[in-house]
Amino acid sequence: MRSATAFAPASVGNVAVGFDLLGHALVGAGDRVTVTVADHGTVKITAITFAGIDPIALPAEAARNTAGRALLDLLSHLHENGLEAADLGFDIAIEKGIALGSGMGGSAASAVAAVVAANALLTTALPIDALYRYAVGGEALASGAAHGDNVAPMLLGGLTIAPAISEGIITPVRVPVPKWLHVALVHPHFVLETKTARAALAGDYPLSAFVHQSENLALVLAGLYTNDAGLLRRGLRDGLIEPRRAPLIPGFSAVKQAALDHGALGASISGAGPSVFGWFASEADATRAGAAMATAFADAGLPSDVVISPVAAPGAVVEQRNFTATAGAR
Amino acid sequence: MRSATAFAPASVGNVAVGFDLLGHALVGAGDRVTVTVADHGTVKITAITFAGIDPIALPAEAARNTAGRALLDLLSHLHENGLEAADLGFDIAIEKGIALGSGMGGSAASAVAAVVAANALLTTALPIDALYRYAVGGEALASGAAHGDNVAPMLLGGLTIAPAISEGIITPVRVPVPKWLHVALVHPHFVLETKTARAALAGDYPLSAFVHQSENLALVLAGLYTNDAGLLRRGLRDGLIEPRRAPLIPGFSAVKQAALDHGALGASISGAGPSVFGWFASEADATRAGAAMATAFADAGLPSDVVISPVAAPGAVVEQRNFTATAGAR
Repeated sequence: MRSATAFAPASVGNVAVGFDLLGHALVGAGDRVTVTVADHGTVKITAITFAGIDPIALPAEAARNTAGRALLDLLSHLHENGLEAADLGFDIAIEKGIALGSGMGGSAASAVAAVVAANALLTTALPIDALYRYAVGGEALASGAAHGDNVAPMLLGGLTIAPAISEGIITPVRVPVPKWLHVALVHPHFVLETKTARAALAGDYPLSAFVHQSENLALVLAGLYTNDAGLLRRGLRDGLIEPRRAPLIPGFSAVKQAALDHGALGASISGAGPSVFGWFASEADATRAGAAMATAFADAGLPSDVVISPVAAPGAVVEQRNFTATAGAR
Repeated sequence: MRSATAFAPASVGNVAVGFDLLGHALVGAGDRVTVTVADHGTVKITAITFAGIDPIALPAEAARNTAGRALLDLLSHLHENGLEAADLGFDIAIEKGIALGSGMGGSAASAVAAVVAANALLTTALPIDALYRYAVGGEALASGAAHGDNVAPMLLGGLTIAPAISEGIITPVRVPVPKWLHVALVHPHFVLETKTARAALAGDYPLSAFVHQSENLALVLAGLYTNDAGLLRRGLRDGLIEPRRAPLIPGFSAVKQAALDHGALGASISGAGPSVFGWFASEADATRAGAAMATAFADAGLPSDVVISPVAAPGAVVEQRNFTATAGAR
């Protein structure tokens, strides 16, 4: 029996200035997927369990599950290119540690952990852009849109630029992150469906809004590349997406203000929400602010969890490989 | 008589991925402005001449001229803050070396040269963000929109992120540029009014176009910060603005293709056009491509000038100061 277990961390998507583009990993919560080699030539989900979060109904049919979909596509690629035995299949056991509809990349993490675990079992490991492509394809099942802002940092760690899925080069790019940069993420206990959050963005946008947002994106990237908190403070604000989604999150304004009042370089919605994040110049600042942000959510009637993490958090890791030789093993 | 002469270079605005945001200086053509201290308490334009370009009608009334407007605003600031004598005024002599309506920042260069020359005459020099603010205000007269993508690189040299004019911090940010990076800019001899080029952009845009353009912007900035031609090649493309403006430029597709066929990392419209630029990994590549691009314009019936320059071109300089003590001088 050959199996591998991989862990993929939660992440902050969008990061205020890079809708569907920027994301960074978080230390702490994550999804864990064990992939076992099978000879049925397809992908089967054998177990879905929950660690530290409330159980929710998830599709157990591989083609409708983000991890299953990612591995079905990966397997098709292998079979079409004759890269592995034609009867190679995968059994998947998913342990979810990220609440879905939290804005922490829960859908992406299962897909990433699945491709990373499966990759550890192949005769020849696939390149990062293949893993990226299949994980993004898996996540798209849940979000209704193919975007890699969560998948990319989960794969590479730290903060990344996530290219759109296309025929061309789609390797994510890792952006350097100052060691002092920390995030406080507060996850209120209510579910905001990604599809609902996306529907709030319907319609067209004026060019001026994009010019402002481009400036913010450029300032944040400049700040990251040059280790300059002042540039991060100038740039880390979202005038494009946040105004449309903020009304979906009870207490958002007060939570954001709590972050800013406690030294945030900027604060906005993580991914599709409802989690709210702020960036800080030290772990101590982030810790103090996280508590204040949670209080603000409590004032709005929502209990919440707080995650304090360096922005330069590690990406997915293979935690265990099991190549036990048993009778009839591949 | 106290006077100073400053030269401001031409520039490439927008740079494909940063509409109204990114720009870089060019070696070669530029505008030259001589500012002379006067005691009439206002701004007067005493001469407009042309060097190397065809003469055109330009407003000689200070309030309607980009250089005059910039200095009127600068002077108001000085007077309102009691920073100089209440009767301080400026006489301006403008020598235009950049054709207007060329997409090379001609309107901005006069304003930048004027504020840089005037600044050299002050008791206390103004900070860069003040010069930026007044020069952008001057240029807005000609373009109909306040945007600093030409002004910023003219002031600082090299390639810059130009912040929108607001009450807050508006210091432009200089982005490092690889030494090997060269531009070929081809200026066809026909005038495309900036206001016409802006009118082509009317209407709203789908969010997806912004997401793609944000990816391109991020990849180009990443390539500049990490000296990576591959990232520049991935990112230097404009799917947002270029499709709407390209029809205004005869031969555009062929000129762009000539650049790409000769090794361009990317090619697009400079500023509001009609000039077309490409970026190249060496001066030799840029030189060969520039000739091919000019041939493509010729095939479309347009003679053109070619500028080959490092992207890391110098910004505005004070060329001369004259503090001659004469009878009655200040």
